[in-house]
Formats: sequence, C-alpha cells, structure tokens
Amino acid sequence: MSRYKLTLEYDGTNFAGWQIQPNQRTVQGVLTTRLGWLLAEEPSITGAGRTDAGVHALGQVVHFDAPAITDRAEFLQRLNAALPDDVCGLGLQEAPGDFHARYSAIRKIYHYHLTLGPSAFAKGRSWRLPGPIDWGDVETATAKLVGNNDYAGFCLAGSQKEDNHCQVEIAHWRRAEREAVFEITANRFLHRMVRLVVGTLVDIGRGRWRPAQIDEILESGDVRLAGQAAPPEGLYLVRVEYP
Amino acid sequence: MSRYKLTLEYDGTNFAGWQIQPNQRTVQGVLTTRLGWLLAEEPSITGAGRTDAGVHALGQVVHFDAPAITDRAEFLQRLNAALPDDVCGLGLQEAPGDFHARYSAIRKIYHYHLTLGPSAFAKGRSWRLPGPIDWGDVETATAKLVGNNDYAGFCLAGSQKEDNHCQVEIAHWRRAEREAVFEITANRFLHRMVRLVVGTLVDIGRGRWRPAQIDEILESGDVRLAGQAAPPEGLYLVRVEYP
Repeated sequence: MSRYKLTLEYDGTNFAGWQIQPNQRTVQGVLTTRLGWLLAEEPSITGAGRTDAGVHALGQVVHFDAPAITDRAEFLQRLNAALPDDVCGLGLQEAPGDFHARYSAIRKIYHYHLTLGPSAFAKGRSWRLPGPIDWGDVETATAKLVGNNDYAGFCLAGSQKEDNHCQVEIAHWRRAEREAVFEITANRFLHRMVRLVVGTLVDIGRGRWRPAQIDEILESGDVRLAGQAAPPEGLYLVRVEYP
Repeated sequence: MSRYKLTLEYDGTNFAGWQIQPNQRTVQGVLTTRLGWLLAEEPSITGAGRTDAGVHALGQVVHFDAPAITDRAEFLQRLNAALPDDVCGLGLQEAPGDFHARYSAIRKIYHYHLTLGPSAFAKGRSWRLPGPIDWGDVETATAKLVGNNDYAGFCLAGSQKEDNHCQVEIAHWRRAEREAVFEITANRFLHRMVRLVVGTLVDIGRGRWRPAQIDEILESGDVRLAGQAAPPEGLYLVRVEYP
C-alpha cells in the first residue's frame, strides 16, 4: 500500500458538508464511493478540514492508502470522469507513509466572499449584503485578529478544546466596487471560526458594535459576545500548506 | 411618459432566453411582470440583444416608457426586491425620447468562458473543455476575425439578413492556467455569431481544421463550413455602448 495526497475542488451547495453521514450526500461519502469504483476497495479518506454544509473548497487536501497507482495523471482523469460535476480532483501525489492531511498541515487559507448590492450570480457562492458598511471600522477590527490569540470566543459553543490558540498570520479584505473578499491565513482554525469572525466584522461594519468588540471576544473567550455566524455559501477553503 | 434606460445582469441558466414567449420563463417576461407591479401598468420593454436560452448578461441594456420616476435609486431598489435571485438591475437612467436600446447601440462586448480541465464551479457558467488546445493556431485564426467582414458564414442558417457585415474591433483571448476567455467587440452581432465563432475556433484548436478555415467561412458565407455553435452557458453579454 502507498499513501496518496489528493487536492480537491468542490461546490458545497448540494453537499451536507465534508464528513460522511448516513443518508446524506457528503463530499467524503461521494469521494469514498467513487474512489472505491477505481480501486480494489473503498479507501478510508481523511480530509484536512471538515467543511460545513454549503461551504466550498478550492484546495481541500485529503489522504488515503491504496495499492500502487502507476499512472497518476491517468488515474486522476478516470477519477474525474467518475465524480459528479460539483467535485473534482486537481492533483494527485504520492506522499510519505506518515503524511496526514490534517495533522501534517502547517497552514490553511480561507476566503469569505461578500457581495455588495445586487447580483444575479451570488446565490450559493457569496453572502449578498444589502446596506452600507463602514470599512474603516471593519479594517480596524480586522487588524486585531492577527497574532497568536485564544480564539475560543470565535468557536461554535460546545466544540472548544483544551487549547484554542490559533496563530493568525494574515487577515485582510480585498475590496472592489461590488465585492469584498476576506482572506485569512492561520496555522489552525476552530469549528465555525471564519464564519463567526466574518459575522462579527459585518456587525461592526453595520455599526452594531465598535471595533473594540473583537478585543472583548478574544479576552473573554465568550462566543455569546460574537455576532451570528456568516452564512456558509460565502466561505471557501482555498489552500492547505505542508512543510 | 418618460423614457428609461435600465442596465441588467442575469444568470441565463434558468431562463428560456431573453425574448418573451408564452408559458416560458424568459428575462423579458419576468422583467415586464415585475416592472408592472411597480408601475401603473406593464411596460413594453425593448432589449439591446436577444440572448438565447442559457446565455448570461453582465450588462444587458433595455428601454421602456413610464410615468416620471422621481427617485430612481429607490425605484431600482424596489425593482431588485421584486425580481428573483437570478436577474437584477444595476442602473436606471432617464434617456432622451428617441433612445432605443437596440438601434441606438454603437458597440457590444461579449465574453465567452472556456474552462480547461476539471472544475467544480464551471457548470452552467462556462464550457468545460477536455483535451489539449493548440493556442497558436487559435490565435492565428482569431486575428482573421478582426475587421469589417461579411459574417453570414457565422450566422444561424435562415436568419441571415440583407446586410451581414459586422465591424469587429477586438477579438482576442485572455488565458490563465485553468480558464480562457474570448473577448469580442463589434458594432453589431448576427444570430448565434459568437457561439459559432467560438465553436469554430475550438475546432481549429483541436486540429480539426487549419486557421485558414476562417477565411473560407468568411469568403463563402456558408455556415455549413463553420463548427458547431459553442454551448450557451459560456456566453456573457458584457456591455452595450451608446454614443
């Protein structure tokens, strides 16, 4: 058996998230079945991040073990022919036997897309936000997110762990007239962290809170001080990096 | 009554094209009904271009007559609230009484999106093209399209007119690793012209014909020498320009 690293793209709209669940269409479930068609048996697949229902990926990474695949390009082509339209493999590499899609990752990059004003193409792909945003306040608040902080206050209640520290290297907004994209890079992310961060930043931009709300949430670790999680359809797992 | 110029964006996926037809969901039909909700009665709407089923618009322009609209920004907001998710108004201006969305236009810009290789997001938005393309040949052929030519050979059989000349100002490809976008600007377009041009260019890129096939199609005016029309989902009416 060899270990393989597979990079995936998927449109999360019609998936009940990444993780396999009975009687639900999930990315892990579909991928397991279709890989099973090509291999001798269904492999056990581990993903770098368990994206929620509706969340997209431009560069999810998974690992699985399989008998040696001699022509990886041809295998990837056959896999893509077997996969439905909304998920595809972008790259397949052989990896060291101790490579782990989740635990070997040193960095992940997520983007969150906001659509400002009307759009005919945003549905399922972006959070369509009516009304004005104070970008000065949003940017002041965003700058407070960078650094090594305890992010328990931006984690789905009940899923906090012993250590909720994340090293956020980059958090910034790329803005155009009709779209704004939040880009965040960290060594790890907690459950629903990006959506809670974006929901809170949007509340700040709408004037519900001052930017100092971010400090209070980080210091207290109390998710009840954060905003609602932003909807899943704006979130993209863009890249997972390894040493 | 005043004349109004409205700029529209729509995702053509779930429309049976622009033009109103009984028992079909069309952009003109939906827009007529929803404008009728806001105005005293349903206006007669004229579009700059009659896009086919599945074809998108980023900047379709229409005109209609209505009693004076005092607050156009507020009217546009109410119109967008009344319109479904896949069509929206981007701008509303008062126009001279003789303004005509179609006949006053001096220039239109279309884009055609090709996806090269696998993609989870291309469905309904781009033509997903498997296999390699000889871009050198495609670019040689594309250059032959620029100029004032008789385009009868790139017009749906039976819809040719007395004069099939088009002044093509720009025809070029913008390419990235996984996507190629064909951009074409002309004073007018014939029925199905862009899709027939793209279908033929792709055939040339796949080695079915040499670039000189373009000369033969233009000289003969015989659409049977052209390739199949490229599928509608890759085509976008990007902009309509007026004096």
